[in-house]
Amino acid sequence: MSTKLKLGIFGFGCVGQGLHQVLSQSSGFKTDIVKVCVKDRAKKRTLDPSLFTFDKNEILNNPEINVVVELIDDAEEAYHIVKYALQQGKHVVTANKKMLANHLYELTELQQKHNVSLLYEASACGSIPIIRTLEEYYDNELLYSVSGIFNGTSNFILTKTIFENLSYADALKKAQDLGFAESDPTNDVEGYDAKFKAVILAAHAFGLFAKQEEVFNFGINTIAIDDIRYAKEKGKKIKLVPTIKKLDKNNVAAFVVPQLINSENYLFNVENEYNGVIVEGAFSDKQFLFGKGAGGNPTGSAVLSDISALSYGYRYEYKKFKQNKDIKLNNNILIDIYLRYNTADDLNKIKFESVNEKYSSGNYNYVIGRINLKQLIANRDYIQKENLFFARVGEEIGIVGAKENVNVEEKELVLG
Amino acid sequence: MSTKLKLGIFGFGCVGQGLHQVLSQSSGFKTDIVKVCVKDRAKKRTLDPSLFTFDKNEILNNPEINVVVELIDDAEEAYHIVKYALQQGKHVVTANKKMLANHLYELTELQQKHNVSLLYEASACGSIPIIRTLEEYYDNELLYSVSGIFNGTSNFILTKTIFENLSYADALKKAQDLGFAESDPTNDVEGYDAKFKAVILAAHAFGLFAKQEEVFNFGINTIAIDDIRYAKEKGKKIKLVPTIKKLDKNNVAAFVVPQLINSENYLFNVENEYNGVIVEGAFSDKQFLFGKGAGGNPTGSAVLSDISALSYGYRYEYKKFKQNKDIKLNNNILIDIYLRYNTADDLNKIKFESVNEKYSSGNYNYVIGRINLKQLIANRDYIQKENLFFARVGEEIGIVGAKENVNVEEKELVLG
Repeated sequence: MSTKLKLGIFGFGCVGQGLHQVLSQSSGFKTDIVKVCVKDRAKKRTLDPSLFTFDKNEILNNPEINVVVELIDDAEEAYHIVKYALQQGKHVVTANKKMLANHLYELTELQQKHNVSLLYEASACGSIPIIRTLEEYYDNELLYSVSGIFNGTSNFILTKTIFENLSYADALKKAQDLGFAESDPTNDVEGYDAKFKAVILAAHAFGLFAKQEEVFNFGINTIAIDDIRYAKEKGKKIKLVPTIKKLDKNNVAAFVVPQLINSENYLFNVENEYNGVIVEGAFSDKQFLFGKGAGGNPTGSAVLSDISALSYGYRYEYKKFKQNKDIKLNNNILIDIYLRYNTADDLNKIKFESVNEKYSSGNYNYVIGRINLKQLIANRDYIQKENLFFARVGEEIGIVGAKENVNVEEKELVLG
Repeated sequence: MSTKLKLGIFGFGCVGQGLHQVLSQSSGFKTDIVKVCVKDRAKKRTLDPSLFTFDKNEILNNPEINVVVELIDDAEEAYHIVKYALQQGKHVVTANKKMLANHLYELTELQQKHNVSLLYEASACGSIPIIRTLEEYYDNELLYSVSGIFNGTSNFILTKTIFENLSYADALKKAQDLGFAESDPTNDVEGYDAKFKAVILAAHAFGLFAKQEEVFNFGINTIAIDDIRYAKEKGKKIKLVPTIKKLDKNNVAAFVVPQLINSENYLFNVENEYNGVIVEGAFSDKQFLFGKGAGGNPTGSAVLSDISALSYGYRYEYKKFKQNKDIKLNNNILIDIYLRYNTADDLNKIKFESVNEKYSSGNYNYVIGRINLKQLIANRDYIQKENLFFARVGEEIGIVGAKENVNVEEKELVLG
């Protein structure tokens, strides 16, 4: 693309404002901001009022604008803006992970159909260039897994429980006071945000377009002092870890669960609001990428890099998807977990394949054993309601054979 | 490029062999290996002998071959191969950092002139995708600095001096026994290898095509037990750190020197043969990339990613260079160092701008102070010969004003 980029921006929070500042100062980016669409009519703006509009059509139907930068919170509204913009033949840069996780496949088809580019590096892990790295850098068959810490808020809370001996509730309060957590923290602390990012990365790592509802997520909001102490005694830390792992030619596991991490794991020292991503491949061994996961500037940095990429016609190719369209999400897998429970009833309900360790002492009971992920999916609400907590131990994943409804004894186990 | 890639490979060591294996098994890469040029006629090959040739012209003058993969050691020979290949209109993938550091600008002009692509991700920091990241991800004005650990051999040796209390000589011996260091280790331990990589990265980070002879490098081969103990007592580690830093609009500092690193620095825990790169930018804050820096597989991984990129017509754009052609290397800068010296004569020869600390005790003497990099350049051979050692402390860089030949008192200091 040699034509100049003419931007229409939706949203003018800290990302949008930083973006405006850099674009107007930089000689590296040959772009104009034509219009900024905002919602709040009352808010005072420091810039020329003629730059702003409250009508989205002034951007979407303006033929001069060839790039839409979507930076609003509302995922549904963002979806309609992005979809319409692509249909109008405009390139789109977005940071909206929830919207992408819900509509990724449809939007990639739209970009293809209308011969435009949809870029969203800012949607996953802030300033870490992980989407571009996965898209450009690894062949599907050479890539084993992608895992990491994708959510700064929950990681900040976990860090406070460890280093300041705070309970979950106090650590959450602190995160909220400091602006690291929203008043309704569900999205972050229950692993939804991390899951949305995992869904996006799975498309670029393995060509898997998973339905986000089918990807299991469990968060840290039921973590208790006992769990934190258990980890500490074992020299480990509990982190909220999304895992995307290739099981065999056509099967990928993807889930977000708390995990007991030992000190050799690169994620052990990823603290506070930072993000880290581990990429494992046949040739490259383990790669570790680390950086600020959220906030106006890191997000702005990723948005900028997408705008820069547009200036030379870059488009995600979804190469892994083209290589193998039979790739599918497999939840019928076995993982090892630590489960803190209350009563024997809990263990009757949440069925383990095998139990290796059992501990009981009045108020604190746990088991460690192998469990089918489907058991956790089926009992998600129960575990939440009863304030139980579990965390994955070890990194092994067993894949259950095709004969899904047979007895445990007959299952074929293939270790991942 | 939609035509199939037809490869001619120079060199068939562990990188070449791994590459052959993956390319022949993968469905992701649509490539053929047409010919492999090797030197050693006596060596037994496991593959069909008709694949091999000893005559470079069978690749270079074969019109069927459209990509040359250059994986030989000899930098001069590599230069002639790469140059000729580009002139024949063939794309080139190379891992030869010394060759690139010596001839980068000329080769980039050739690729432009002949409308082909020259890619070399494998030349810097093994499997870490640093060139692509710098090229695609950061605007010149938004990037502050690139630094890190670029050389696995010297880092392996330093790690052994710290954790196994070995002297430099014993650690070097161990590295050689384990195959991590060559019998002549000069290139690695004196910082040449790290410098070649820094020269390459400077082109992609800031558009600086520096003459490698003008970039200062000093290594770790004069490090003494006293230096290692000093670092330990201060809770620091000595690492061999290349730094590329923008000083102002047109000035870049670039040098490779040992550095005293504290535990908050991301490089503190980069041990053994691993590499780490820190990228600092206005928007992205600090990024840290970590992975295996050398070896057949990590190098092969990077070569593969370049071949993959060729399949969709990728070419480095040298965007930063196009933005600002006035960028130049500036060695007239002030840095803070720890210097272990022997006699007062040493300090008469190596002139500091100012000295903050002085320590003497029989056999062990050091000063800590601010020094012009030019003093270190002028006294490089002396420091080597007398077995002195220095290491940078802190990260500040002072840039001396344009009036270069005036007295110290008249110098304009602008802190970086």
